[in-house]
Amino acid sequence: MDFEYSQKTKDYVERVGAFMDKNLYPNEEELEQQIEDGGRWCVIPLLEEIKARAKADGLWNLFLPDSGRGAGLSNLEYAPLAELMGRSHFASESFNCSAPDTGNMEVIERYGNEEQKAEWLAPLLEGEIRSVFCMTEPAVASSDATNICSTIVRDGDEYVINGTKWWSSGAGDPRAKISIFMGKTDPDAARHQQQSMILVPLDAPGINIKRMLSVFGYDDAPHGHAEIEFKDVRVPVANLLLGEGRGFEIAQGRLGPGRIHHCMRTVGAAERALDAMCRRALERKAFGRYLAEMGVTRARIAEARIDIEQARLLTLKAAWLMDTVGNKEARSEIAQIKVAAPRMALKVVDNAMQVHGGAGVCQDFNLARLYAGLRTLRLADGPDEVHLDQIGRLELKKYL
Amino acid sequence: MDFEYSQKTKDYVERVGAFMDKNLYPNEEELEQQIEDGGRWCVIPLLEEIKARAKADGLWNLFLPDSGRGAGLSNLEYAPLAELMGRSHFASESFNCSAPDTGNMEVIERYGNEEQKAEWLAPLLEGEIRSVFCMTEPAVASSDATNICSTIVRDGDEYVINGTKWWSSGAGDPRAKISIFMGKTDPDAARHQQQSMILVPLDAPGINIKRMLSVFGYDDAPHGHAEIEFKDVRVPVANLLLGEGRGFEIAQGRLGPGRIHHCMRTVGAAERALDAMCRRALERKAFGRYLAEMGVTRARIAEARIDIEQARLLTLKAAWLMDTVGNKEARSEIAQIKVAAPRMALKVVDNAMQVHGGAGVCQDFNLARLYAGLRTLRLADGPDEVHLDQIGRLELKKYL
Amino acid sequence: MDFEYSQKTKDYVERVGAFMDKNLYPNEEELEQQIEDGGRWCVIPLLEEIKARAKADGLWNLFLPDSGRGAGLSNLEYAPLAELMGRSHFASESFNCSAPDTGNMEVIERYGNEEQKAEWLAPLLEGEIRSVFCMTEPAVASSDATNICSTIVRDGDEYVINGTKWWSSGAGDPRAKISIFMGKTDPDAARHQQQSMILVPLDAPGINIKRMLSVFGYDDAPHGHAEIEFKDVRVPVANLLLGEGRGFEIAQGRLGPGRIHHCMRTVGAAERALDAMCRRALERKAFGRYLAEMGVTRARIAEARIDIEQARLLTLKAAWLMDTVGNKEARSEIAQIKVAAPRMALKVVDNAMQVHGGAGVCQDFNLARLYAGLRTLRLADGPDEVHLDQIGRLELKKYL
Amino acid sequence: MDFEYSQKTKDYVERVGAFMDKNLYPNEEELEQQIEDGGRWCVIPLLEEIKARAKADGLWNLFLPDSGRGAGLSNLEYAPLAELMGRSHFASESFNCSAPDTGNMEVIERYGNEEQKAEWLAPLLEGEIRSVFCMTEPAVASSDATNICSTIVRDGDEYVINGTKWWSSGAGDPRAKISIFMGKTDPDAARHQQQSMILVPLDAPGINIKRMLSVFGYDDAPHGHAEIEFKDVRVPVANLLLGEGRGFEIAQGRLGPGRIHHCMRTVGAAERALDAMCRRALERKAFGRYLAEMGVTRARIAEARIDIEQARLLTLKAAWLMDTVGNKEARSEIAQIKVAAPRMALKVVDNAMQVHGGAGVCQDFNLARLYAGLRTLRLADGPDEVHLDQIGRLELKKYL
Repeated sequence: MDFEYSQKTKDYVERVGAFMDKNLYPNEEELEQQIEDGGRWCVIPLLEEIKARAKADGLWNLFLPDSGRGAGLSNLEYAPLAELMGRSHFASESFNCSAPDTGNMEVIERYGNEEQKAEWLAPLLEGEIRSVFCMTEPAVASSDATNICSTIVRDGDEYVINGTKWWSSGAGDPRAKISIFMGKTDPDAARHQQQSMILVPLDAPGINIKRMLSVFGYDDAPHGHAEIEFKDVRVPVANLLLGEGRGFEIAQGRLGPGRIHHCMRTVGAAERALDAMCRRALERKAFGRYLAEMGVTRARIAEARIDIEQARLLTLKAAWLMDTVGNKEARSEIAQIKVAAPRMALKVVDNAMQVHGGAGVCQDFNLARLYAGLRTLRLADGPDEVHLDQIGRLELKKYL
Repeated sequence: MDFEYSQKTKDYVERVGAFMDKNLYPNEEELEQQIEDGGRWCVIPLLEEIKARAKADGLWNLFLPDSGRGAGLSNLEYAPLAELMGRSHFASESFNCSAPDTGNMEVIERYGNEEQKAEWLAPLLEGEIRSVFCMTEPAVASSDATNICSTIVRDGDEYVINGTKWWSSGAGDPRAKISIFMGKTDPDAARHQQQSMILVPLDAPGINIKRMLSVFGYDDAPHGHAEIEFKDVRVPVANLLLGEGRGFEIAQGRLGPGRIHHCMRTVGAAERALDAMCRRALERKAFGRYLAEMGVTRARIAEARIDIEQARLLTLKAAWLMDTVGNKEARSEIAQIKVAAPRMALKVVDNAMQVHGGAGVCQDFNLARLYAGLRTLRLADGPDEVHLDQIGRLELKKYL
Repeated sequence: MDFEYSQKTKDYVERVGAFMDKNLYPNEEELEQQIEDGGRWCVIPLLEEIKARAKADGLWNLFLPDSGRGAGLSNLEYAPLAELMGRSHFASESFNCSAPDTGNMEVIERYGNEEQKAEWLAPLLEGEIRSVFCMTEPAVASSDATNICSTIVRDGDEYVINGTKWWSSGAGDPRAKISIFMGKTDPDAARHQQQSMILVPLDAPGINIKRMLSVFGYDDAPHGHAEIEFKDVRVPVANLLLGEGRGFEIAQGRLGPGRIHHCMRTVGAAERALDAMCRRALERKAFGRYLAEMGVTRARIAEARIDIEQARLLTLKAAWLMDTVGNKEARSEIAQIKVAAPRMALKVVDNAMQVHGGAGVCQDFNLARLYAGLRTLRLADGPDEVHLDQIGRLELKKYL
Repeated sequence: MDFEYSQKTKDYVERVGAFMDKNLYPNEEELEQQIEDGGRWCVIPLLEEIKARAKADGLWNLFLPDSGRGAGLSNLEYAPLAELMGRSHFASESFNCSAPDTGNMEVIERYGNEEQKAEWLAPLLEGEIRSVFCMTEPAVASSDATNICSTIVRDGDEYVINGTKWWSSGAGDPRAKISIFMGKTDPDAARHQQQSMILVPLDAPGINIKRMLSVFGYDDAPHGHAEIEFKDVRVPVANLLLGEGRGFEIAQGRLGPGRIHHCMRTVGAAERALDAMCRRALERKAFGRYLAEMGVTRARIAEARIDIEQARLLTLKAAWLMDTVGNKEARSEIAQIKVAAPRMALKVVDNAMQVHGGAGVCQDFNLARLYAGLRTLRLADGPDEVHLDQIGRLELKKYL
């Protein structure tokens, strides 16, 4: 047992950290301003520059394991980098490591054929286009994926796609070109073989972005979360991934690494909020004393430290398990971090807001936006309740 | 001891409830749409119509106690009406009962002279103009009001006002005409006699709205929360309220009723969220069962019911104490509800969001906006920590 | 709506309070010592004296409503007296107001015939004998009363009783003479008509006290909680209460007032713990400051005050509802206080222990014993989970 | 980074586990019975046998690092064994690894001279005698060790000791022969050099065990927690440890490993409680369903699993830090586990009690006793509040 990061990880941590110090933190306001100036649903020029620098520095596609195409880092090696990226809003994209592209690239890498890779994976890996994952549907509780009722019906050499999806994140980006769409190819098949995944170009006729969803008032531009109607959308049969009825299998494989990424970014976000809390406490006075001199403030800082440490260790252990025994054996731990990390970070950010007073809930310290984003993580990929239930079942299974 | 509302209260509850059933609930979406259509910082035509109807029905200025000008309801009598108004975003304004106008009208009513009343109170009571309260400052922890450092300096027949205020709510409204401004007239006076309050028309030269603050990602248009710079703003000495050095005294008198209003509206907001939670649980299925059939959901509904009941009772008791023994004797209870009510409602709304899944955090069920608004209540008029400390001190005082 | 106690209540509060100041608080240690000296399972001489004084002062059987035999107080009028009694371990018994005698006396008063009243109610009302309630069984989850599987089988002029009961509180007292026993007279009847209640003298052949249960490490002597085996115990048919198959009906009627008593005593216990916390904080120093000077301590005191106020109000409202609309209409509120009051008090006592350091968990401040007793209230009469589920169901029912 | 235990650790884990399966778990009731039969403050014959077996199996003094006298395990290597021992009440003593002997042996090993080791360490390592640590005083908040006011005054070749100590655990054991006593040798020295530690045989004249303290009603016999008066107790100057004024230094060195032991035992206790919760949930029915079939139960089991995993990882990391960078560098983590582990375990045990119903708070499942013991850990070696404050200060220090 050894709690020290490997030398390889430490090197990457240092490089990513240094890159962020130089390129991300000092540019956070400017990047926001460029979104504003560009009318929000725009390409951000400065971000494109930063991406070019990251690519030049070899800090690119770090998330992609087991592949000649990425950095070849294991989940455990990548996790601390995801944590760093969680500290700054634009960091993940800077390194071409932002969701849902990461998951989509992994899916095409693992399950796509050579044509699909050439057409979609290559430009995604270059950061030239972006992608969307179309799974959740407004009409049904999508945490139970068997509820999903969009249809993918074969008609000659084409599939005809119908359905309404929402929380299709990234659809606001002008560079979003391709989606991975989940729907039923065979409603009469066995429960977990009804679904398939298919590549659907976003400029296909019949696709209609009905509206953009807000998250606690934020539009998350230029990324954004769309509600999209698919009406008789036709794509060639060659666009199907892996095979009919294998949608669940792909979904399963997609989930694990994404959880590590999300949870480690969440840990990084919590560290950033704790940092803000400490700084504020050291510079703000009330009733004649700095907030940092008050026991109530120090207790909260301590609670944040304890909670962050624990969540980080659990996430790293889940990553290590994925690397050593595989996603299936690690499924309790993967579910555990899905519950533990966002909950932890929400508490830290909430306390950080409180220490900031009114400044904490407005646009000045990014804390409220952080909170909003983290709050959705208690719902995305299934609400806490579903994961807790699964963990409980796995625990009870040990006795049967 | 009697937990039944008086007949008078019950009558008002019925009338306000019926008015809301007819005019507010069915128009919530249309009202939002008119804000959108009007460019956000606009007068909302439909709301003006609704206000006219409320006025015609005698449901107007219900908040104003002890005055020929209002409905003459005690705090205890008004409280259940405030709860009802808390259920719908536009309700308070419909009855001319929305903050900060309510507090400002009370201040002018109690501390203003006849000229001030004629010029500002009359149109406020008519709902023709709106007002702003300029107290909090970005540069200092304003929960400790002695920190406030804006200046009000006499120069001949005028006062010269300098300072930067923020969280000046309502400043976005095109009808906002007048502000009550707090600042120091004498920095060398005793600690609680340095401050004064003064009426400052918002069109006075030297006033500059620097920016509007967001709450989480909401702009709260057309109301809005402004950061305002006052630079050498000059007003006649007659605009001073009550007298130099009496700002604290006014602030004190202003606080109590506002707390009851806020807290009862908070109770109403929580009831609305619980209502949404129950409805959603009864119509949404996952894993083959309605959410309402799951023990975890029912337990949360139960927790919400318990918490709401308790917070309502405590708020009503605080109102009753204010009516019977006065604000000063009731100051522990007033502080208690300030802490208890928002905390309770945040938990209820958060659980309601969770039951709604992704729909809970976007624009569809208003829950995230409710959450954002309630979250600020843990900071407005001083953060929880200040109130808890005061309650603790009052408790310990009993032993000295 | 009026939060002031009636004059009658205020008079009783004053008299009970004065009696406790004189007779209970100063004798708490001596009463404990007499239990020790008497070998624990003994009659406490000083307590008998105090009871005589209470009876002489007319502070006797205060709990018994609607009856020529008691004080004739409504639930709302009695509640504040129960709160006072909750402040001191021996207070309830001093006024002949301690469980399970109170519930048992009510049952015999309401459902017993004249012979039963003469034989058992009269000496109970005099405080000469004590009684036991035999409902819970070790073998089944007794919160679901249909699980109860003891049998009451008619055999000529007798009923033959078999079964094992536990948590039969009061069975350790040498004066315990009679039990009310619940069991099945007809296992084939409709679900809620299988059960009956019957009076079983504790000296009947076939009754065997197998052991006394500890609560945490407390034996609660001389009261105690027994596991009792009933083996072919025979009692005359005249001992049946109300009629065969009416056990549920009686259980229902017994519950409501008992909840108010328990919850108000719980509020009193929390007040006592808060009192201890404040006193300790004012006299204990660490790191150069009194604990009372530390913000963390004051925040906890404040939380305790807020929580106590809310739980008290909810309990009083439930009492008022029982008096005005009846137990059935008030069943949500009765369940609500069952959950809210012990939870609140446990938190207060736990924080009080923490402020006392090691002294808090040992015999010196009675806090750990208080905690242990309160902890059982989250289980007695059904665990929280059952009540939350019921509250949730009642809430959802409003929509059907 | 590697989350797998070393082969050495895994071997020990297997051996200790197998020993417990064979010797501890099946004998838990018999061991309790022998305490009862022996009049509680007795040597337990069966435990002595088990100890002999453990010694014969080479599972003896496992806690003692860096010494020819113990097993030579690092903190990280010993930690998983401490976890196992935490699963059963008598396990630690079986392996001669129980507090306060462990800490006392370490102190004599590290700071004692050869004579002291021969006289006291040798028989302690053999498990022939037991020992007591006399630090906490009833009169002062001992978490602030500078408060401690017992005196150790030199008089010729002797030190004269005066003071009252409590929570002197193990003093009830008939084999308790020696204490390590902390007191002031020089009240005028610098703050952290006033204190010394000295070996005081428990049969020295002037030592009076005033009473045994209960923990939530438990006497913890035969171990027990004593209040001890030292009145003019005289010991040879040779009994002083390390030197005058070095008491703090010793206390500091003693603390770290003890924290790991306590916290890992706490993790083990939580695992045992979770195990009990699962088993109960799988065999108990209410309202027609097993408790394990209810979502509320599964959610709690899941919460327990998540919380245990996190606390274990944090404790292991603290152990690793102690081994690699030393106690001083690891002091935040050591404080963090002191807060996190007992809190976690109390929640798990409390939920386990709740699932057990009345059986959970009595003697039948050991859960209430577990709770009581864990509750004291939030106070022993300083209350949570002191540790949280220290963690907060260390965090803030990073910015100075």
